[in-house]
Amino acid sequence: MHKIGFIGLGLMGKPMAINLIKAGYSVIVYNRSKPAIDELISMGASSAKSPKDLAQQVNVIISILPDAPDTKKVLFGKNGVIEGINPNSIFVDMSTISPIQTKLIGNKLLEKHVLMLDAPVSGGDIGAKAGTLAIMVGGKKEDFKKCLPIFSAMGKTIIHVGNSGSGQLTKLCNQVVIAGTLSGVCEALVLGSKSGVNIEKILEVISSGAASSWQLSNLAPKIIDRDFEPGFKVSHLMKDLKYALETGEELNIAMPTTSLVNQLYNSVLAEKMGEKGIQSLIVSLEKLSKFTVKK
Amino acid sequence: MHKIGFIGLGLMGKPMAINLIKAGYSVIVYNRSKPAIDELISMGASSAKSPKDLAQQVNVIISILPDAPDTKKVLFGKNGVIEGINPNSIFVDMSTISPIQTKLIGNKLLEKHVLMLDAPVSGGDIGAKAGTLAIMVGGKKEDFKKCLPIFSAMGKTIIHVGNSGSGQLTKLCNQVVIAGTLSGVCEALVLGSKSGVNIEKILEVISSGAASSWQLSNLAPKIIDRDFEPGFKVSHLMKDLKYALETGEELNIAMPTTSLVNQLYNSVLAEKMGEKGIQSLIVSLEKLSKFTVKK
Repeated sequence: MHKIGFIGLGLMGKPMAINLIKAGYSVIVYNRSKPAIDELISMGASSAKSPKDLAQQVNVIISILPDAPDTKKVLFGKNGVIEGINPNSIFVDMSTISPIQTKLIGNKLLEKHVLMLDAPVSGGDIGAKAGTLAIMVGGKKEDFKKCLPIFSAMGKTIIHVGNSGSGQLTKLCNQVVIAGTLSGVCEALVLGSKSGVNIEKILEVISSGAASSWQLSNLAPKIIDRDFEPGFKVSHLMKDLKYALETGEELNIAMPTTSLVNQLYNSVLAEKMGEKGIQSLIVSLEKLSKFTVKK
Repeated sequence: MHKIGFIGLGLMGKPMAINLIKAGYSVIVYNRSKPAIDELISMGASSAKSPKDLAQQVNVIISILPDAPDTKKVLFGKNGVIEGINPNSIFVDMSTISPIQTKLIGNKLLEKHVLMLDAPVSGGDIGAKAGTLAIMVGGKKEDFKKCLPIFSAMGKTIIHVGNSGSGQLTKLCNQVVIAGTLSGVCEALVLGSKSGVNIEKILEVISSGAASSWQLSNLAPKIIDRDFEPGFKVSHLMKDLKYALETGEELNIAMPTTSLVNQLYNSVLAEKMGEKGIQSLIVSLEKLSKFTVKK
């Protein structure tokens, strides 16, 4: 288990793979674009020429990719993981995809005697870099236990929440909370800023009471600095909210706030800010009120 | 300044007054109902027979009451503060009322040479008891400085945010953030619970990442325990959201999430839960989905 295959070196994946190297693991990476691979190689990783090639060399494969089609492609596409994987290997999907897709993928892997954990994360690029991610794991308890030392190199709060798909369901709950929280933060920023009270003083005081949250502490300062660089991308949150709303539809759960926030993000897409950070939600509210938050 | 008049011994006021006594202040209290007065007397406070009587004995008066009419009544009603107050006294209103009312009251007090600070708080009954409240203060800087040692006995983050009314405006921002945050928390609880994943495990893991907040950590556990006792009452939050939305209307600020959450609270009032805690928001979402969150 000392050798790990790692697929997907994006905003989250890259710092996570780096933390595995720092923890002493031998890491073999595969990624679509080359610069991230080169960076990892310079830090001691090796690279595989395909997911198949990667799978042949390890017994644990971690992937963190944008969505289910990406995960399926590296698994079941040409030169995919499935063509090279050793029986009884563990495939750990740390992407956020729908719980339904997770179960489908898991079943397909099981036919090849490959075990799967769904282990999406929360904590943004900040948490990924610091190795303080929350990791919510679904799948068999024994597989979870085997992978716990690996998770510990990337995260702080690591919980086995239940059977296959439970990790993804937990992540959807996480995103629903974030959507509501961030919308409250953004509306307060517009209200506070337009009222003329110093917005930095407002933030200083409300960040320490019952309004306090990760979103308020980490994203409100970016908003007042007009920093829309992504810690977590709008397009990714919108995908997650779509899955949350779909799951809600299946289970007959009405989620009016989540639905509203999802609609407001359409207005962010209209500004071509889908690849910006989720703090760009402010733009939809600023347009509605014809006012830009300022220091 | 060692002697303080304290008016309003409710959920918040009582523990705040107790913290003043513990810090060594001599506290004179006035309250509508007697049991809280008796409790304070047993801890070393004295009591006044009217706001007028109280005002005659001190130079600093703190009030924390439900709304502006209550504040006006103790100030300007029969045997009110204004009839007994010493010139150059400071009146510190720690209630949450509208910024407009604060300015009107402040102007009226100034005619009697009484200085006023608006100093609403956040942190709930938990913060009030622990003396860790966030206190957001509007008014003259010099008056703020005079009262800082007093505030320090009740709170941890104490910020002078600006001129008269700024404290109230800041508090409205605080409440707008809370409304959004809590609605996200409640929707996630219904989604997570109905999905069948263990809700306590979901909470454990999402409370440590980007979804983390005071509301999630403090109110979600109460919701799954079906504990609706108030740390902060529905009727009070609804009053605050009304002021936030009114201020928004004045300033032409669209706050769709705040407005939605305010509407959902009407559904909580339909259950006659206005005097319960704000975590009762869950009831509106449970009714919509015909499902009760369970452990």
